Amino acid sequence: MPQSAVFPGSFDPITLGHTDIVERASKIFDKVYVAIGQNTTKTTLFPFGKRMEIVSKVFVNIPGVEVLSYEGLTVEICRKLGAKYVVRGLRSGTDFDYERNIALMNSKLYPDIETVFFISNPDYAGISSTIVREIYKFGGDISNFVPDIVSDYIGKMDRAVY
Amino acid sequence: MPQSAVFPGSFDPITLGHTDIVERASKIFDKVYVAIGQNTTKTTLFPFGKRMEIVSKVFVNIPGVEVLSYEGLTVEICRKLGAKYVVRGLRSGTDFDYERNIALMNSKLYPDIETVFFISNPDYAGISSTIVREIYKFGGDISNFVPDIVSDYIGKMDRAVY
Amino acid sequence: MPQSAVFPGSFDPITLGHTDIVERASKIFDKVYVAIGQNTTKTTLFPFGKRMEIVSKVFVNIPGVEVLSYEGLTVEICRKLGAKYVVRGLRSGTDFDYERNIALMNSKLYPDIETVFFISNPDYAGISSTIVREIYKFGGDISNFVPDIVSDYIGKMDRAVY
Amino acid sequence: MPQSAVFPGSFDPITLGHTDIVERASKIFDKVYVAIGQNTTKTTLFPFGKRMEIVSKVFVNIPGVEVLSYEGLTVEICRKLGAKYVVRGLRSGTDFDYERNIALMNSKLYPDIETVFFISNPDYAGISSTIVREIYKFGGDISNFVPDIVSDYIGKMDRAVY
Amino acid sequence: MPQSAVFPGSFDPITLGHTDIVERASKIFDKVYVAIGQNTTKTTLFPFGKRMEIVSKVFVNIPGVEVLSYEGLTVEICRKLGAKYVVRGLRSGTDFDYERNIALMNSKLYPDIETVFFISNPDYAGISSTIVREIYKFGGDISNFVPDIVSDYIGKMDRAVY
Amino acid sequence: MPQSAVFPGSFDPITLGHTDIVERASKIFDKVYVAIGQNTTKTTLFPFGKRMEIVSKVFVNIPGVEVLSYEGLTVEICRKLGAKYVVRGLRSGTDFDYERNIALMNSKLYPDIETVFFISNPDYAGISSTIVREIYKFGGDISNFVPDIVSDYIGKMDRAVY
Repeated sequence: MPQSAVFPGSFDPITLGHTDIVERASKIFDKVYVAIGQNTTKTTLFPFGKRMEIVSKVFVNIPGVEVLSYEGLTVEICRKLGAKYVVRGLRSGTDFDYERNIALMNSKLYPDIETVFFISNPDYAGISSTIVREIYKFGGDISNFVPDIVSDYIGKMDRAVY
Repeated sequence: MPQSAVFPGSFDPITLGHTDIVERASKIFDKVYVAIGQNTTKTTLFPFGKRMEIVSKVFVNIPGVEVLSYEGLTVEICRKLGAKYVVRGLRSGTDFDYERNIALMNSKLYPDIETVFFISNPDYAGISSTIVREIYKFGGDISNFVPDIVSDYIGKMDRAVY
Repeated sequence: MPQSAVFPGSFDPITLGHTDIVERASKIFDKVYVAIGQNTTKTTLFPFGKRMEIVSKVFVNIPGVEVLSYEGLTVEICRKLGAKYVVRGLRSGTDFDYERNIALMNSKLYPDIETVFFISNPDYAGISSTIVREIYKFGGDISNFVPDIVSDYIGKMDRAVY
Repeated sequence: MPQSAVFPGSFDPITLGHTDIVERASKIFDKVYVAIGQNTTKTTLFPFGKRMEIVSKVFVNIPGVEVLSYEGLTVEICRKLGAKYVVRGLRSGTDFDYERNIALMNSKLYPDIETVFFISNPDYAGISSTIVREIYKFGGDISNFVPDIVSDYIGKMDRAVY
Repeated sequence: MPQSAVFPGSFDPITLGHTDIVERASKIFDKVYVAIGQNTTKTTLFPFGKRMEIVSKVFVNIPGVEVLSYEGLTVEICRKLGAKYVVRGLRSGTDFDYERNIALMNSKLYPDIETVFFISNPDYAGISSTIVREIYKFGGDISNFVPDIVSDYIGKMDRAVY
Repeated sequence: MPQSAVFPGSFDPITLGHTDIVERASKIFDKVYVAIGQNTTKTTLFPFGKRMEIVSKVFVNIPGVEVLSYEGLTVEICRKLGAKYVVRGLRSGTDFDYERNIALMNSKLYPDIETVFFISNPDYAGISSTIVREIYKFGGDISNFVPDIVSDYIGKMDRAVY
C-alpha cells in the first residue's frame, strides 16, 4: 500500500535544511506533500503567493514530492490527503522537546497519524527560517542557507519595504 | 502549620494538564491557590472574566483548592496569601530549563518561596495552552485536552470573532 | 522498491517500549529486522540464547518483522541485509542528543544509512531495559513493562542466581 | 493527615546538595525518610556502615528527618513506611530527563507514589557524589562539597586503600 | 597579536549576568566590545539612548572593555572591528541549543568568526533580561539582578508609561 | 600577560573532534596544554604510553600546543602549569549539562580557573572516543574519525587482543 507523508511549515523562506529533509523523506514515502500553511494572522517576510511559487519551483523535479497550501490544522490536511505520516527534522534536544508536544497532541486529534523524525544534516546545522529572516532583514547574504531560487527571487525584491 | 501553595498561570484556557497538577498538589498542600494572572497587556483567547468563571467552576468541588485572580508578580500574590510554595508541572528538560530561571529569580525576590515541580501526567503528555489555542482557532476539537466545562463554554462562543 | 529497516538493541530484556516502536515501524517499512546484538564482552541479565528465543516469540505473528542476531557493527548488519534505515525510539531530548551522535557516526561509516526516529508512546513513558533489570534484580514486578512472554519466562527462571 | 516522603540514594558520600534538599523537603512533609540503599552488588567508596553512621549524624538535629537503610526497590520502602512521596533534586534538564523515567516507572509499580522535585540550590550547583568521589580519589579537598562530618571522617580514613 | 571579542545584545536592561560575562571575557581578550543592537523594529523597555548611556557607565572603569552601538548583523560589526570572537554566556542546555544555531550560521556568514561560551555564574543563575523586564513592569524590585546604575536610573524613570 | 589553557582528556583515542578544538583554542591562548590523564584504575583501549606518543605526534607542528601527562585532578595540573583556563568542546545541550557540573566544581576547588567552551565542528558532529572505541572493537573503519597517525598506529596493532 502506498504510504504518504506531509511536511508542514510556513517556509518563510524555505531553507536548505527543509529541502534536505524532504529529499530524504521522499526516499521512504511514496509521496511527500510539502504543505505550506496559509496562516492569515501571522505576518510573514514573503507573501503567501511567493512562498507557494518558490517552494513549487524548488521541488518541481523531485519525483514523489507535491507542493500544496493549506489552511487550518496539520492533522486535517493529512486526513484529506490520506497521509498517515508527518515528517519533521530535529537539530537538537530542544527541538525534540518542542516537536514532541505537537506530535502527541496531533496523535490525540487523529490517532492514525504518526510523526517521523530525521536528524538535520550537519552540513546545514543551525539553519532556521527565523534566523534567515533576521539575516535578510539586516541585508546579510542568505545564499548559503536557502535554495538558489530563493536567492534569485530575493535579488528582485524591493528590500525597501523593511 | 498549614502549608499553602500557589499554582499561577493565565489558563487561556485551562487544560487537563493543569487540573491534574492542581489535584495532585492539593494532596500535599493544605491549600492550593489557582492564581489567574490578569495581565492587561497580553491579548488572550478567552477574556479574563470568562477564564475566572471557567477555572472557578472546574475546581468548585475540589477541597483545598481556591481560585483567585491577581495582577503583578507571582511572588507578591504568594506573600499576600502567606503561601510559601509555587507549584509547576514539567513535561520535559526544556520546560525545566525555562522554569528554573523563573524559580531562581522568584527566590531572590522572596527568599521564603520555594518552587515545587511535578511531572506532567503522560496521559496528558504534550498538552499546552498555546497549542490548544492554535487548534481552537483553526476549528479543531479541543475536548480531549480541556475540562468538559471549557468545551461546553466554547460551544456557546461566537467563533466568528477569529 | 521494498524498503527495509533495522531496529538494533540488546533487548535485555525486550520491553513494551520496544515492541511498540517495532510495530509502528512495520507499518512504514516492508521489512523490519529486529537485530539482537551478540556482544560477548557485555554481561547481560538474560543469556543471549534466551533473548533470541523470547524476542522471536514476541514478533512471531507480526507480518514484516524478522528477528535475527548479529555480532559487530550495526551498519554492517544493515549492509548485509540491504537495509537502508535504522529505527530508534526517543523518550526525551537527552535520548536525542545521545542517539544523534551514534546516527551521525553511522552515516559516516555507511553514507547510505538513515536513522529514523519515533516518539516513545506515552503509555510506556519512561520504560528502559536498564530500569527493568534493576526492578527485576530487586524482586519487583516487571509485568507492566515487558511483553507477557518475558514475564512467563521469568516465572520459570532461577532468581537465586542473584 | 501527616504526609511523609522518602529521599532515596546511596549517599556515597552525602553532599551539601543532598542536605539542602532534605532540609527544604522537611518543611513541606511531616516526615522525611533519608533512605540509604544497601545495594550489595555496587562497589562504593564508603562502606555501607560508615554511610549509615555519617548520614545519621548529619540529620540528628533536623526535626522530622529520619535516616534508615533499605534493600530492594524504592517503591517497596515507600510502601512499608506509608510514604506517598519521593523527593529528588534537579540541577538540569538532563537530570529531569533521567529522573522522569525512574519516576514514571515507580508510579506504575506503585500508583500511589508521587515524585516531587526541587531545584538544586545554585550555591551547590554542579555538586554530584560521582565527582566528589573522583576528587577524593585524587587527593583533592572535598570539604566545600560535603557536610563537615564527612570531612572529619575522611581525615581519619586510610587513604592508602586507593 | 591582540585578540578582540564582541559581546552582542540588546541589554534591555543590562543585568549582573551580562556584566559578569564581560568581566570574565575581558581577562582573556585584549579588547571586549559590548555591542548594543540598535534594532529599530523591536520595541524595548529602555530607549536606545538610555541603554547606551547606562551600559557605557557600567563599564567605564573596566580596562579593555568598549561600549558601542550597531545596526545590522553581529558578524558585520565583528568584521568592521576586526574582532574574531563572539562571547556568550550559557545558563542551561536549552541556552546552548539556541545559541548553537546562531553561532553556526554566523560562522557560515563569516568563517573567521568563533563563538566562545562561558558558564553563567551560579550567583546570578536564572537572570534574564526578559524576566527582569516582567518584574519591572509589575513594579517589582530588580536591584538584585542589575548593576546599581540601572536601579538608579529606574528610580528616576516615569513608571506611569506602563 | 600570556594566557594558557589546559585541554584535559584521556584521548583513548584522540579524535578529529579533539584536534579541531585544540587548534581553535590555540588561536586564543598563547599556550594550550593537551593534558592526558593517567588514570590508573580505568581500563583503556590504548595503553597510556601509546596515547602519549600518538597525541604528541598529532600536535608536533602546531605552535603553542604542548602535550603532557598528569595524574590526579585537572585543577592541580592547571595550578602547576599556571594555566587559568580549561577548554572543552560541546556537541549538545546534554554535553553542556554534564560539563557544567564539572566546571562549577573545578571553580570551587580553584577559584581562579575558568572553563571556556567551543562548539564542536559540525563536520565532526557526533564523534566521541567511546563510539570510536566501539567501532574499533568490532573491526570497523575509524579513519574518518581520528587523525591519520591513529589509523597508522592501529594498522600495526595486534587486534587479536580483543
